[in-house]
Amino acid sequence: MIQEMISIPALNLEMRHKVNKYINSLTKPRGSLGRLEELAIELAVMKNNPFPTITPAGILVFAADHGIVAEGVSAYPQAVTAQMVRNFLNGGAAINVFSRQIEADLKIIDIGVATEIEHHHLISEKVRFGTGNFLHEDAMSREEAEQAIHIGYSEGLNIINQGAESLILGEMGIGNTTSSSAILAVLSNKNINCLIGYGTGISSEQLLHKERVIKQAIANRKPSSKDPIDILAKIGGLEIAGMAGAMLAAAEKRVPILVDGFICTTAALIAKLIVNNVVDYMILTHHSTEPGHATAISLLGKTPILNLGLHLGEGTGAAIAFPIMRSATLMLSEMANFTSAGISEKTERVKV
Amino acid sequence: MIQEMISIPALNLEMRHKVNKYINSLTKPRGSLGRLEELAIELAVMKNNPFPTITPAGILVFAADHGIVAEGVSAYPQAVTAQMVRNFLNGGAAINVFSRQIEADLKIIDIGVATEIEHHHLISEKVRFGTGNFLHEDAMSREEAEQAIHIGYSEGLNIINQGAESLILGEMGIGNTTSSSAILAVLSNKNINCLIGYGTGISSEQLLHKERVIKQAIANRKPSSKDPIDILAKIGGLEIAGMAGAMLAAAEKRVPILVDGFICTTAALIAKLIVNNVVDYMILTHHSTEPGHATAISLLGKTPILNLGLHLGEGTGAAIAFPIMRSATLMLSEMANFTSAGISEKTERVKV
Repeated sequence: MIQEMISIPALNLEMRHKVNKYINSLTKPRGSLGRLEELAIELAVMKNNPFPTITPAGILVFAADHGIVAEGVSAYPQAVTAQMVRNFLNGGAAINVFSRQIEADLKIIDIGVATEIEHHHLISEKVRFGTGNFLHEDAMSREEAEQAIHIGYSEGLNIINQGAESLILGEMGIGNTTSSSAILAVLSNKNINCLIGYGTGISSEQLLHKERVIKQAIANRKPSSKDPIDILAKIGGLEIAGMAGAMLAAAEKRVPILVDGFICTTAALIAKLIVNNVVDYMILTHHSTEPGHATAISLLGKTPILNLGLHLGEGTGAAIAFPIMRSATLMLSEMANFTSAGISEKTERVKV
Repeated sequence: MIQEMISIPALNLEMRHKVNKYINSLTKPRGSLGRLEELAIELAVMKNNPFPTITPAGILVFAADHGIVAEGVSAYPQAVTAQMVRNFLNGGAAINVFSRQIEADLKIIDIGVATEIEHHHLISEKVRFGTGNFLHEDAMSREEAEQAIHIGYSEGLNIINQGAESLILGEMGIGNTTSSSAILAVLSNKNINCLIGYGTGISSEQLLHKERVIKQAIANRKPSSKDPIDILAKIGGLEIAGMAGAMLAAAEKRVPILVDGFICTTAALIAKLIVNNVVDYMILTHHSTEPGHATAISLLGKTPILNLGLHLGEGTGAAIAFPIMRSATLMLSEMANFTSAGISEKTERVKV
């Protein structure tokens, strides 16, 4: 059982009080850095350090294919998953660009792409050649789901051992909004048509079809909403399992998890169902335009930092938001305080 | 007349079409980077360059005092303006921290602090020792208002000539939310109580007092809503005039102006009243919690990038948002396209 393997430290809530007090001593009006102050406190509490650092960030992009694409639920052909993996390895994708910008350590993991890919920079941990078409069969076995979580967990530990001070999870997998919407329908008990969107760009006709496919698939598979392994095995994705596993590793090591958009938030909910207090180590970086994201966000209970109409995946939203979290940590470590700077405090009583 | 001195180039709208088409060739679903794509287009159009760069940013912080603080409208004593200028010069303020983070060129300009400050890094361009108390007298003469705009304009040109590829304007001036609210009341014709807030942290009682002071001051001064120099002279601030002047210089040189919060947006509206198409070169970086900002934003006609509950000033919100604009430019310059990366385009017709 994965649950028994994981031990996530409780947050030190005294740190919250201590850092809040310190922030109020810095040379700025109280509260004037708004959400940045809250982020600084959250990061300090997670790291149990009043001067937390989040650089370098580690980025793990898990890639896998989805049997469900045979039902015509995606805008792009399945081959694009492998093609995009090559694009990652060649440095040309969006996540490469933003990863370089924030000087992150980026690793690409093949956890279940449907074709063979060889590249000296690719981490090959293929559990199987894509999932089964979950309209007709389970996406994977329970053992495969657990194996994918373990791979994610190990890769999470690896990148942290190599120095990552924060963790961004990304994914690539044509069809993975379909799997995520299905998972979310099971977790939220909401009607599937509140939870699906155009993914990478299907038509309205295809959207109706996607809805019918997911509804029928859930009726066929009957996943248990209380059992994360059952959900992953029946309607999941290998990359979703891998991301969830990596999140558990980060939380265990007190490393902040910077949650990206729709797929990543779904993986975060799976991780939460495995060990509830993994969410203590999560920061939600942005609000995606994918319609189901609002429901996923409310289940996670976090407030997104950005709302920029992003819906790319790959971990890009988290990478774009990263400098804001960095600003929060630098506020703590570099700003002067009223006493040291010789600045008058607020007027106690002004003429009114 | 300042208007006759300024010549702001018209935007090349063909560039918009060209860059939009190019973005659609990049290896990501169309539109999936949301606001980033729009920012990339705006920056390309402003710079008339399909691969615009905005680094290094230049940051000009204008500091000045306000005679109106004698009426008890501020949470901090007037001495804090000069104390904070010293904090800027010693590198301990929030804007120093975020300026270092984005590797900007930061300059501090004394355009009207009420006391003498000497420091080898301070740009001393004092127009007068603080404005007059505009409840009882004009804040400054028309000549002084024009002089302050010219100083801002010159400093804008200087920092651009020294290499700034984008411009952030910041301010420090105890009492400047009072001046800004008064200016906004004149520009918007809205009731002053929709436009005032707690500034750096006054009480509810003081807020009512601030409202009465501004209402009476406007009745006494009667500034013309069509004449930016009259507004500045009667109820303005020297730092607001300086910021407006620097914005005009940036627009003239096709340098994007990254507009900060409440005070800076008010300065942007003054600049717009001087030469209307200066707004073509403005990007609004964040939505402040200062209540009047919403009205200022709607008058400017721009959509803020961030909404993080910031209300510090100094240009901090613009500096915090800067990496997002940088991400937009890097998307253009570094991402692969579908053809070069050998990636399949969208499926024309999928099985439905």
